[in-house]
Amino acid sequence: MHLLTPSLINLLDSWLNEDIGRGDLSTICLNKLIGSAYWVSRNTGIFCGKEVVEYLFKKLDNSIKIDFLIQDGEGFSSNQKLLKLHGSTKSLLTVERTALNIAMHLSGIATATSNLVSELKGTNVKFADTRKTTPGLRVLEKYATRCGGGINHRFGLDDAIMLKENHLAWSGNLESTLKKMKESTPWPTRIIVEAENPNQAEEAVKAGADAVLLDEIAPETLTSLIPKLRDLASKRSGYKNSSEIILEASGVNPKDLKKYAATGIDLISSSAPITKSYWMDFSMRFQ
Amino acid sequence: MHLLTPSLINLLDSWLNEDIGRGDLSTICLNKLIGSAYWVSRNTGIFCGKEVVEYLFKKLDNSIKIDFLIQDGEGFSSNQKLLKLHGSTKSLLTVERTALNIAMHLSGIATATSNLVSELKGTNVKFADTRKTTPGLRVLEKYATRCGGGINHRFGLDDAIMLKENHLAWSGNLESTLKKMKESTPWPTRIIVEAENPNQAEEAVKAGADAVLLDEIAPETLTSLIPKLRDLASKRSGYKNSSEIILEASGVNPKDLKKYAATGIDLISSSAPITKSYWMDFSMRFQ
Amino acid sequence: MHLLTPSLINLLDSWLNEDIGRGDLSTICLNKLIGSAYWVSRNTGIFCGKEVVEYLFKKLDNSIKIDFLIQDGEGFSSNQKLLKLHGSTKSLLTVERTALNIAMHLSGIATATSNLVSELKGTNVKFADTRKTTPGLRVLEKYATRCGGGINHRFGLDDAIMLKENHLAWSGNLESTLKKMKESTPWPTRIIVEAENPNQAEEAVKAGADAVLLDEIAPETLTSLIPKLRDLASKRSGYKNSSEIILEASGVNPKDLKKYAATGIDLISSSAPITKSYWMDFSMRFQ
Amino acid sequence: MHLLTPSLINLLDSWLNEDIGRGDLSTICLNKLIGSAYWVSRNTGIFCGKEVVEYLFKKLDNSIKIDFLIQDGEGFSSNQKLLKLHGSTKSLLTVERTALNIAMHLSGIATATSNLVSELKGTNVKFADTRKTTPGLRVLEKYATRCGGGINHRFGLDDAIMLKENHLAWSGNLESTLKKMKESTPWPTRIIVEAENPNQAEEAVKAGADAVLLDEIAPETLTSLIPKLRDLASKRSGYKNSSEIILEASGVNPKDLKKYAATGIDLISSSAPITKSYWMDFSMRFQ
Amino acid sequence: MHLLTPSLINLLDSWLNEDIGRGDLSTICLNKLIGSAYWVSRNTGIFCGKEVVEYLFKKLDNSIKIDFLIQDGEGFSSNQKLLKLHGSTKSLLTVERTALNIAMHLSGIATATSNLVSELKGTNVKFADTRKTTPGLRVLEKYATRCGGGINHRFGLDDAIMLKENHLAWSGNLESTLKKMKESTPWPTRIIVEAENPNQAEEAVKAGADAVLLDEIAPETLTSLIPKLRDLASKRSGYKNSSEIILEASGVNPKDLKKYAATGIDLISSSAPITKSYWMDFSMRFQ
Amino acid sequence: MHLLTPSLINLLDSWLNEDIGRGDLSTICLNKLIGSAYWVSRNTGIFCGKEVVEYLFKKLDNSIKIDFLIQDGEGFSSNQKLLKLHGSTKSLLTVERTALNIAMHLSGIATATSNLVSELKGTNVKFADTRKTTPGLRVLEKYATRCGGGINHRFGLDDAIMLKENHLAWSGNLESTLKKMKESTPWPTRIIVEAENPNQAEEAVKAGADAVLLDEIAPETLTSLIPKLRDLASKRSGYKNSSEIILEASGVNPKDLKKYAATGIDLISSSAPITKSYWMDFSMRFQ
Repeated sequence: MHLLTPSLINLLDSWLNEDIGRGDLSTICLNKLIGSAYWVSRNTGIFCGKEVVEYLFKKLDNSIKIDFLIQDGEGFSSNQKLLKLHGSTKSLLTVERTALNIAMHLSGIATATSNLVSELKGTNVKFADTRKTTPGLRVLEKYATRCGGGINHRFGLDDAIMLKENHLAWSGNLESTLKKMKESTPWPTRIIVEAENPNQAEEAVKAGADAVLLDEIAPETLTSLIPKLRDLASKRSGYKNSSEIILEASGVNPKDLKKYAATGIDLISSSAPITKSYWMDFSMRFQ
Repeated sequence: MHLLTPSLINLLDSWLNEDIGRGDLSTICLNKLIGSAYWVSRNTGIFCGKEVVEYLFKKLDNSIKIDFLIQDGEGFSSNQKLLKLHGSTKSLLTVERTALNIAMHLSGIATATSNLVSELKGTNVKFADTRKTTPGLRVLEKYATRCGGGINHRFGLDDAIMLKENHLAWSGNLESTLKKMKESTPWPTRIIVEAENPNQAEEAVKAGADAVLLDEIAPETLTSLIPKLRDLASKRSGYKNSSEIILEASGVNPKDLKKYAATGIDLISSSAPITKSYWMDFSMRFQ
Repeated sequence: MHLLTPSLINLLDSWLNEDIGRGDLSTICLNKLIGSAYWVSRNTGIFCGKEVVEYLFKKLDNSIKIDFLIQDGEGFSSNQKLLKLHGSTKSLLTVERTALNIAMHLSGIATATSNLVSELKGTNVKFADTRKTTPGLRVLEKYATRCGGGINHRFGLDDAIMLKENHLAWSGNLESTLKKMKESTPWPTRIIVEAENPNQAEEAVKAGADAVLLDEIAPETLTSLIPKLRDLASKRSGYKNSSEIILEASGVNPKDLKKYAATGIDLISSSAPITKSYWMDFSMRFQ
Repeated sequence: MHLLTPSLINLLDSWLNEDIGRGDLSTICLNKLIGSAYWVSRNTGIFCGKEVVEYLFKKLDNSIKIDFLIQDGEGFSSNQKLLKLHGSTKSLLTVERTALNIAMHLSGIATATSNLVSELKGTNVKFADTRKTTPGLRVLEKYATRCGGGINHRFGLDDAIMLKENHLAWSGNLESTLKKMKESTPWPTRIIVEAENPNQAEEAVKAGADAVLLDEIAPETLTSLIPKLRDLASKRSGYKNSSEIILEASGVNPKDLKKYAATGIDLISSSAPITKSYWMDFSMRFQ
Repeated sequence: MHLLTPSLINLLDSWLNEDIGRGDLSTICLNKLIGSAYWVSRNTGIFCGKEVVEYLFKKLDNSIKIDFLIQDGEGFSSNQKLLKLHGSTKSLLTVERTALNIAMHLSGIATATSNLVSELKGTNVKFADTRKTTPGLRVLEKYATRCGGGINHRFGLDDAIMLKENHLAWSGNLESTLKKMKESTPWPTRIIVEAENPNQAEEAVKAGADAVLLDEIAPETLTSLIPKLRDLASKRSGYKNSSEIILEASGVNPKDLKKYAATGIDLISSSAPITKSYWMDFSMRFQ
Repeated sequence: MHLLTPSLINLLDSWLNEDIGRGDLSTICLNKLIGSAYWVSRNTGIFCGKEVVEYLFKKLDNSIKIDFLIQDGEGFSSNQKLLKLHGSTKSLLTVERTALNIAMHLSGIATATSNLVSELKGTNVKFADTRKTTPGLRVLEKYATRCGGGINHRFGLDDAIMLKENHLAWSGNLESTLKKMKESTPWPTRIIVEAENPNQAEEAVKAGADAVLLDEIAPETLTSLIPKLRDLASKRSGYKNSSEIILEASGVNPKDLKKYAATGIDLISSSAPITKSYWMDFSMRFQ
């Protein structure tokens, strides 16, 4: 899958403009014109950002040589060299901050995701992200989730339906609503319904939801609820009323991941690797 | 100062596109057409994002009414209502996530900044941000810093000069370098030189730096170094060789802020409120 | 669902630029400054384009009044008035051609779709579009499909998977391929597999496809194949191996629609309303 | 003449974004990384789109090799190979649909134009397009017209003046109007006046029109009218009152082309190759 | 004619960004929030820029009131008030420089044009601009020419043909070249041929040029040449071989304008009002 | 310092679009496909524009070879060859005008700057530009100033503060205003205060200005005022109240430059090289 689509490339160009503005004044000082540098990590984590870093340096100066010592999704430890650069010192220093910023940010997300995913090792339960992403960075942050071993939830309002508390409050009878939506949206669209208690969950399954998001429901409750929901689903029929149901838990405290994994759930989704993570710490050093 | 310049407006429009894509499929369910909603906080912090949130809702649907119960820079506690919305339920739900994401992100930065700034209360020392900002969000994240009580460092590579380790390694004699830069850059440009030990700091002052960034130097060392640097500066003369020097500490562990504040430093800069902060947690609820 | 997202608005602005270029020279002739006009149809069909037409006139001149006598999806006959305009004659004439062009094009698609959909009346079979759309116009042409009574297939390469002849030739064992894709793509993604004969169709169902696109298979063959495929599906199990299967026919000659509808198929997809339709013929006349 | 101007390049990039969106999910399946493919036609026509097709593949992946077996404006028959491709299978499949769509659309226009132009073979009468073009595609559709053997009419509202029914109704005395326009528009601008009957045509010539568009006037009427108009023109004099007149017929039923060609007209213009044509049918096949 | 097309609006927005950058720091000082101001001229000239000035202020702040005391194309004398402003002092000061810059620049061009045009008063000779315009400003600078009483030459490479010295050197026989171009370019296109001596001019007329640009030819030579060229033209015939010829002089020293006007020429074109003019001097003053 | 940032590149692309529009019609005439050309000057001056000229030719046609015989900032005399070009004649002629226009404009500014700077030879006084620049061209016109030997003043409203007459009228007590601004703007920001008489200048120094712009004050007055201001500054202290003051004269008649230089001023700023300069005259000739 190509990560750098034309629209993402426009975004990366705007980042260079954001930092460079009307021109980098500091590089006027340089009298060594060609130099070598490398990036080094100051903590332990999972790397993410290779294609973006490479694009940024080469956009400003196509003659820069960049040699990655690590690939996206691979782990690094403290003081590990991540990549080597060679070329115009002026170009290296002008791009440095923008390239470090995005790699440190994305690697922070990949690392935080990986830490949670490792809690689920040995189970069949998937860890998924959410739409709580930094504005402008969704495609990249969701890529970082994948580098950390998670899977992606929907990318936007247009590739799956999710009926949340407010949608349900402002619409009518759930069954007829879902029937209408199945007829009028692009046919491959899945419909997810959020439920905050077992009754809502059962209603959603009966109404024909493809998936139910079980929000802030205790693991003990889930353990008994999940087989019931699967049983209800197995009795459904009709156009796009599948006998299968996907069950997702959200609102899960990271320390309870293992408990939730044991309930029979399919997926656990959480925004924590994006909203509650730290940037990794990388530096660029001359040789 | 106008925050929403034409280029920032283009950025905000791209965020709506990022989430909406080819159209919000979920809102097809709605049969209540006009509704009211409000935002509520789930933790304690400093609010930031008013103009951006207002712009996002009104861009998609100019008929939405929005009424802020809090202003940027003001504190909120858990379960406090932040703003009220009224209008097309379809529009409210389509913009919800994008608007919440940016406000939660910026309020997280304002809150983290405010926590550090409060450590400096009663001193004359300023707390400043850095260029470690999320790509695409610099103007907004630096605005959040101000909402949290901090001040801004330079905004980019073009509004001040900072000669860091790599610049110094790849240029020649510092005094003649600074002389040349004073003659050739826009004359209001300030020149900051990074120093990692007292010798480098003294050399920078003698060479004519407008400011010295004292990186990872212990408070005790600073206490004796700072008067020496101010004394060296007082003897300078010539074009743009001011007898004043601005002294800035960086690489400071947040728990040592008070110790650093006592050294006589002018500024402490840190990226922590951006690279090591959590998003605040807000929800939109219907009435 | 909001049709005019910010990115669509940028597209509409570029259309005005395309026709106006450096300025409309013809309107210099006008000495009547304010006038009224209306649009009239010269054939029979289904109207589509209301929001776009309104946006185009108001973008150039917000003081223009526009009053629609028909709504998207409604039928019109020859010589029927479609809308009334009042305002600056200069503005009316400058926007005329661009607005007519898109409305005539989209109404042509809606009309052609409606003609095919009417063949399926009384059956449960849906009529769907494809990704054969005019570059730049996909969101609007798919909207025109809905106005004509059809449903939409996927909007792009990112909201569903379709493995076609070339994909299958260049990948490995189908079952392990599908298993891997279910684990690594956004979890709500559906996987459609194209089949050109019964064997391929059966293989696709067994391998876990969510849907099979039965391409250029005769109706008689389908009549016996479809129950077999549904039966195979009913025996599937495991993560995202639903016991339901969606079956879609393509490569269907429009005159055979009724025969295909009788085979038990769920959907028939065709690009004909876009690739083989005529524009409707509308004129703008002064009053 | 360069077809791919910078603004056209931006348009082509937006088409890739339209189809790819947040990333092509289907190509994850591929395990053969490098492959060869070709395009083949399924009907007979005139090819158009070489530069655009080449740009689209190379924009996404500059390492793709493309070898055209046909040039723009050349004819193809059914089952003829049109071009060969070699490179990353992932890239080939991601660009396939967008590239096919534009080439099939443009080749349809070139073919329909060529069919009409062949009716005029052996005469001096030119076949011209109109401003009824698909929004966003004018430069390319007018290029397709040329590939089909037609000539272009004006490209927009800014490169020639055409006073149509509504302009005439909302302006004053034609002679003084044309005099004013000759004085105030860029001096190379030609002024075309639409006439729906002989009287209007004679008035237009006397008033100084550079050309008259004779709309929906029967061939018999034209046969006697045209010499009269040329005679009236030969008596004109003064600044930009040429003794030459260009006469253009529009509203011509395609089956009457030969009759119109015999009237002494200079040009026949028609939107039919754009508004009433079918896409050609091409497929991409692996080798 | 609408001056502010969507693409021009994008240009104006970019000008605001150019000056405002990341935000206007100076306006933080203001404690009077609402104020009045006016613009005053410091020299004598012709005003140009009304719509642009109005757009710039209102784009940043739609609540600003602006009242023009002068219209585009009207003369002003020293110390004359040009317009009045009322609204947010912050907004007035942020837009001031950008709005003044463009109005001073365009008014300088209108004034310089007007000075040259006044030399031609009482003759039938037109004064035209050229394609020597400041990159990015062509549409506006050509508008300023019209405000100064001049007429426009072609706007770009696409709305008329001009074969200059280099074109002629790199093409073949002129007559067959012009014949081919008449057949292949949009039919309303005029063909201008540059001539540097009488022989070249005669050859151009015979070959079928619509206009001849007589470059740096002395007035005495023109006096005898022009009737000869008109006579040659009167004998032309065939498709688009008009018996009329437009004759244009270029390379004219402004002080010789009257002499050239007496030669019988139709047009004199000059870039001097753009390449050799001064900005007018306007100031914004508070009340 | 990289001149061609991504945002400047977008600007250059828009210039090509401005001239080329829907395609260069004149180059259809060419039958010599590859050719050589050169640029020659017709007057004496300082060259500016190398990188921009190179970018423009190569953007349209990367195969063009360009060989500069002069560097930015170097002088040329009349009839001097400036650069040589080799490649597609079509591409050379299509880019010619746009490339010449910007180089002639920028070289005019560099030359006019150089003429004024030479008046200051032998003094320590710097010559600076202002924010009176042609909209859209600020970064390039300020680069031309440097090529002419001048220095740059601030680039926009965001990289230094200047309080002018209107700011002062609409704000309160100057000392408290400056104190507040020092605390709230990015700390490296310099604050310049405009003064129209000695009293205002003294007040500005006392209030803590970093620089004073002495506008339209006679040289004799300055001679006595300047030492007084430096003396007042030497007594200042406190956060960012430097004992140094930068003194700048504006509103200076170019013929009085030497007199002003003798007053002890640091800088003289003037917009004359931009608002009152002529373009240089270059031609492209074939070989």
